[in-house]
Amino acid sequence: MNAIPKAEYGERIAKFQANIRAAGLDAVLAHSNEADFANVRYLSEYWPTFESAGVFVPAKGKPVLIIGPESEAYAQGRSLIPDIAMMVEYRESADPEYPGIPVADYARVAKMAMGNRPLKKLGLVGFSIMPLPVYFSLQREFPGTELVKADDTLVSLRINKSANEVKLMKKAYQISEQAIDAILGEIKPGMTELQVIGIAQREIYKNGGEYEGHALYCFCGPGTKHAISRPTHNKIKRNEVIQLNIGARVGGYSSSVGVPCSIGKLPPRKRRLVEFGLEAHLKTYELMRGGKDAASVVREYEAFVEQRGFRQNMLYGPCHGIGMMEVERPWLESTSAYTLQENMMFQVDTFFQGEDFGLRWENGVRVTKTGVERLSKKFQRMVEL
Amino acid sequence: MNAIPKAEYGERIAKFQANIRAAGLDAVLAHSNEADFANVRYLSEYWPTFESAGVFVPAKGKPVLIIGPESEAYAQGRSLIPDIAMMVEYRESADPEYPGIPVADYARVAKMAMGNRPLKKLGLVGFSIMPLPVYFSLQREFPGTELVKADDTLVSLRINKSANEVKLMKKAYQISEQAIDAILGEIKPGMTELQVIGIAQREIYKNGGEYEGHALYCFCGPGTKHAISRPTHNKIKRNEVIQLNIGARVGGYSSSVGVPCSIGKLPPRKRRLVEFGLEAHLKTYELMRGGKDAASVVREYEAFVEQRGFRQNMLYGPCHGIGMMEVERPWLESTSAYTLQENMMFQVDTFFQGEDFGLRWENGVRVTKTGVERLSKKFQRMVEL
Repeated sequence: MNAIPKAEYGERIAKFQANIRAAGLDAVLAHSNEADFANVRYLSEYWPTFESAGVFVPAKGKPVLIIGPESEAYAQGRSLIPDIAMMVEYRESADPEYPGIPVADYARVAKMAMGNRPLKKLGLVGFSIMPLPVYFSLQREFPGTELVKADDTLVSLRINKSANEVKLMKKAYQISEQAIDAILGEIKPGMTELQVIGIAQREIYKNGGEYEGHALYCFCGPGTKHAISRPTHNKIKRNEVIQLNIGARVGGYSSSVGVPCSIGKLPPRKRRLVEFGLEAHLKTYELMRGGKDAASVVREYEAFVEQRGFRQNMLYGPCHGIGMMEVERPWLESTSAYTLQENMMFQVDTFFQGEDFGLRWENGVRVTKTGVERLSKKFQRMVEL
Repeated sequence: MNAIPKAEYGERIAKFQANIRAAGLDAVLAHSNEADFANVRYLSEYWPTFESAGVFVPAKGKPVLIIGPESEAYAQGRSLIPDIAMMVEYRESADPEYPGIPVADYARVAKMAMGNRPLKKLGLVGFSIMPLPVYFSLQREFPGTELVKADDTLVSLRINKSANEVKLMKKAYQISEQAIDAILGEIKPGMTELQVIGIAQREIYKNGGEYEGHALYCFCGPGTKHAISRPTHNKIKRNEVIQLNIGARVGGYSSSVGVPCSIGKLPPRKRRLVEFGLEAHLKTYELMRGGKDAASVVREYEAFVEQRGFRQNMLYGPCHGIGMMEVERPWLESTSAYTLQENMMFQVDTFFQGEDFGLRWENGVRVTKTGVERLSKKFQRMVEL
């Protein structure tokens, strides 16, 4: 089925605890919310909704899943971490008081996880999304404990994908392709961007997806210029770039396929940039392989774009990590200081802007010793319907 | 169209600034993320995705929208607050470095908003979701400034709905009803819970919704016992409670309609609890009216359930606030210390559990002087297909 085997969760916890010890930490608290769900799900399979969640993992001892006051039955049925605590810090943002529902505190969670061993240094994972009530409660309950950012202890495990993770990623990309196929068969001028999203949603769930891999994109007109945006009630027009970025999520793993297309022919200046975008997209694959310095991929990509005369059309690029989150570490940037390794996965995200439009070719790759394995390659041609 | 008129945003800012002054604050920083989007959207219409966002509102002066480094073009096209700053604290959780993209800091935002006026006391809105990088940057940049939780200054505005808000809420409930109609027409034994969600998603977007109003529910079997849960690949069975909680979002306003149904007849003990649930749901409407003490609604509801012999089947209830978020303040709890007022909106959320199943009747109401106006009343009968 579309799930990571239970044994792999045990291996993850063991590797994570080794990282925690290597970092000189006594324990780590990882955080997730409904949208940024990956850290907690990677460790427990639990995926919060409405409420947030955490996992407390001691250097030695047992992990504890922390949930909000309304998720007890859900978490008991889903979590692969058997020890579960409910805490009010993880409640819904409407701040209900839950009179009569008993809740735990961090001192109790630490006791469950590590008995009476000392907690001098606690690492925080998911630092950029960790909310203030969590932090202030930690400070209050553990006044002598040093609290330090520790994202690397967990994120380093998530970067190189296992065989089971690769399988789920491939399935997620396949469902994204099925959704785009359905869109290309049904899209008509006069349909709204949001109606097109509805086609994709239907297909994602019909074909075995569990959710969208990211907030889906269908833009027609000026919205295509936006690196980040939301679809609108604007209508699809002929002879315009229609930008589709459609991603499915399978067993906690997210994908996205990006295709610029049109109904009828594009004006030549737009068509030219769409075609160059595809060329740059395919070029990026050629630049990547295991053992290569990440920043040099970026330098070579930028040199290619510059030499072809499209530097002013480039906002950023050319890749970011992908896995549980559609965007996760590491990014490929000119400041990157790491080497590509086998089984890293990247979203090749090729974005160019003209004065009044933009376009984006997006597909996923797995780094191999000699190059990349493409996770989707169905839509790597100009589509004029 | 499905949007709050621009002038109403100006009125919101003016009222908010009056609250900020009344609270003795020099300014407020409101926070939103992709999932918990309401505070920033209420003030600006801007709805972040991938990145987070803030609005800095001075007691006197101009509000400033704060976005992440990738959302500039999107925010310029969408925000009704014209002054926009990009800050790295609002970037994606993958922590990209964005070499070459210029970003602002809080000192610059404060200068844009309030010139050189002193910032002695800064209120924080969206405290329960405000992440650490935002807080630590505020501490570092404003070392002499007192930072205080100030959710009430904004949330108090959101509780009583305007005529335009009521209109969008009604449309959102209507779309939820359309989605449930489609599900009841298509649901079959052997379909997975997630496939049913796909039907709802298709209908939400087809009928003018902009997104799901919350993570949608379709559960069949033990999952119906969960107050909070996620749909699965489990198959729909005959003669079982199938729990649907389907919500659309329109112009930033969220709805949900909850119906327990079955394919074929339910066993009598299950049918009895479903029917009592509906009775308790309808009873709740009768208990509500403008001017009534909120806690007494809860007490009377609980007494009704107790007197009918179903106290042990009740987890919580009977209502929570609804508006931009499907769950927002205020909740109706036995500890509530406020009075129901005209144009407050509540989700009447009637949840009962048996040993191996649960059920939930959910519909929205607007409080009036003499009772409630129901926002949806199409599915208030037992549905056995």
